[in-house]
Amino acid sequence: MFKYLYRLPSASVLFSTTKKLTTVCSNPSFSFSIKLCNLRKNKSNFGALFIPKDIQVRVVSLLNIRSMSKSVDSSSDMELVITENKNHELLTAAYDNYGGVTVEVKDPLDSEIFLSLHKASIKEWTQKGKKGVWIKLPIEHVNLVEAAVKEGFWYHHAEPTYLMLVYWIPETVNTLPLNATHRVGIGAFVMSDEGKVLVVQEKSGKLRGSGVWKYPTGVVDEGEDICTAAVREVKEETGVCISIDSEFVEVLAFRQSHKAFFEKSDLFFVCMMRPLSFDIEKQDHEIEAAQWMSFEEYAAQPFIQKSDMFKNIVEICLKKKGSGYYSGLSPVSTKSSFSNRESFLYLNKRDLNRTSNDNEP
Amino acid sequence: MFKYLYRLPSASVLFSTTKKLTTVCSNPSFSFSIKLCNLRKNKSNFGALFIPKDIQVRVVSLLNIRSMSKSVDSSSDMELVITENKNHELLTAAYDNYGGVTVEVKDPLDSEIFLSLHKASIKEWTQKGKKGVWIKLPIEHVNLVEAAVKEGFWYHHAEPTYLMLVYWIPETVNTLPLNATHRVGIGAFVMSDEGKVLVVQEKSGKLRGSGVWKYPTGVVDEGEDICTAAVREVKEETGVCISIDSEFVEVLAFRQSHKAFFEKSDLFFVCMMRPLSFDIEKQDHEIEAAQWMSFEEYAAQPFIQKSDMFKNIVEICLKKKGSGYYSGLSPVSTKSSFSNRESFLYLNKRDLNRTSNDNEP
Repeated sequence: MFKYLYRLPSASVLFSTTKKLTTVCSNPSFSFSIKLCNLRKNKSNFGALFIPKDIQVRVVSLLNIRSMSKSVDSSSDMELVITENKNHELLTAAYDNYGGVTVEVKDPLDSEIFLSLHKASIKEWTQKGKKGVWIKLPIEHVNLVEAAVKEGFWYHHAEPTYLMLVYWIPETVNTLPLNATHRVGIGAFVMSDEGKVLVVQEKSGKLRGSGVWKYPTGVVDEGEDICTAAVREVKEETGVCISIDSEFVEVLAFRQSHKAFFEKSDLFFVCMMRPLSFDIEKQDHEIEAAQWMSFEEYAAQPFIQKSDMFKNIVEICLKKKGSGYYSGLSPVSTKSSFSNRESFLYLNKRDLNRTSNDNEP
Repeated sequence: MFKYLYRLPSASVLFSTTKKLTTVCSNPSFSFSIKLCNLRKNKSNFGALFIPKDIQVRVVSLLNIRSMSKSVDSSSDMELVITENKNHELLTAAYDNYGGVTVEVKDPLDSEIFLSLHKASIKEWTQKGKKGVWIKLPIEHVNLVEAAVKEGFWYHHAEPTYLMLVYWIPETVNTLPLNATHRVGIGAFVMSDEGKVLVVQEKSGKLRGSGVWKYPTGVVDEGEDICTAAVREVKEETGVCISIDSEFVEVLAFRQSHKAFFEKSDLFFVCMMRPLSFDIEKQDHEIEAAQWMSFEEYAAQPFIQKSDMFKNIVEICLKKKGSGYYSGLSPVSTKSSFSNRESFLYLNKRDLNRTSNDNEP
């Protein structure tokens, strides 16, 4: 079921689809590659090659095996190719402009093979003057985490689907970017021209069953703009079928608080919104109820009066409602030659656009 | 070197300080505990007990062994206690108010023992109606990561020293809090009464060698207030021995940008600072040079003129410098009955404190 292009004298070659390639040497005195290609679908991708101990064997990355299998067409079920290989195989990596190296492991890899490739790669990167090494390990390759940590890597950050490990080659203090430290939330103060405020009661969370009517709040998704998140939360929190459309006006205030969850901090932006629709249909899963409430009734709730923050927001809204004279920060779309990416800068537009003829207090 | 209080018939008991306890059964038909205590310092804390296969053995958590060793005083070097144990041992866990369970693994644990304890624990927590299960694994216990993931855990977040894994018991959609999504940075605009701006040149980063003079910037540390970070960065970036002291005035504007590093976003707060000292001594490691520069010279730099954001900040500072009439958001210390924690709420103090007698534009 396999053919060999080059047969080593005195090497006993066995093949099995259920065993992994385990004979690995990182500094082989005699180096050659084993490549398995054109494996049948849904079968194990591994093979085993047993060779007497006096002959050292080094295998190529399974990444290469995978990619090769796509391009080779053969009538045999599987093919074992043994060729001389004078180059050390390295982990597939991308270089960045900061002297960094990023390895993204996309295909299954035996931890011993990984270690072998890693040792050769670090040698190469050190010679090239590289500094930080990033390894992105999808959760399905959790078998490599222990091996990487034993090689000196540490955790940088993690998301549900992957773990990012990092290593610093030079002997200097590392200048790697810090992990994300803040979660960002929004509170949406939707006030109508008649002075009615959109309020909800939560089905879960700290306020569940308390009877408190609060303005809609939520967490800003990864990659989402604050002004977009506020519009989305008003729409989501107040109904699935007939939801409240609203327009972002400005950030009235924001609060930074620490140890919001574990050691992480929280930035909470209170946003003034202008309603574009008024019919409410409650969304069963998230909130108990939603309604338009007079501002006075909202502000009189004991829960609001007991909280410095909510009281401040009430005072801000009173200013806004009365004279209309409270200015927060509103978004301006900017593009910078520095990052070449569009992003929102939130500033006090009213003050910035005032001419010198305007009255000043 | 050990004594046994209860000797199992037909069980052959051996002891070694170099081997781990490996005979584990998660659902033992016959259950008893092995406890090692009063081990000599700096020696392996593990022992091995070999028992014929027809007798199933279950061991207690090494956490318990550790903690027990502190309280037991004996003249023998070590003591092996075998007692009948009818209760299943569980992972040490703390319950929270949201139906959550948090396990913090503090002492070394064999992955098979961990699995055994985990299976019994999940059964217990399911019966108790628990929902989310958090496991905090310090990096030295990386040997348990693969076992946890194979049991259905996924990554929640990671810091250099630990990995937080999470699991959701109910069949409902999980309501676990999201990971942190944002890094927070500050830019400190320190302007003197004479209209001089504190500027620096970076030794590393994108602007290295560009000749650009920029205001000091930096990353807000975990748990640090924005207004504190701005003061620290001005002090750190402009010298070790004789540094610039400054006072936080307000957040002039902030920018939210995405994919700042990997998939994470960035919130950058531009802060107005009032200088309290003026003598500059440069700090070798971080910056090339620092100086007080006229505002006009700063603003005229091509780099500033090419960036929407920097141009906006220049315009804001022009307002501030001329009429003094641009109001950002400044911090008010708040304490809420809701969280009972002190935090800063940033709001437009000037507008909020205006009386109705003030002129309005």
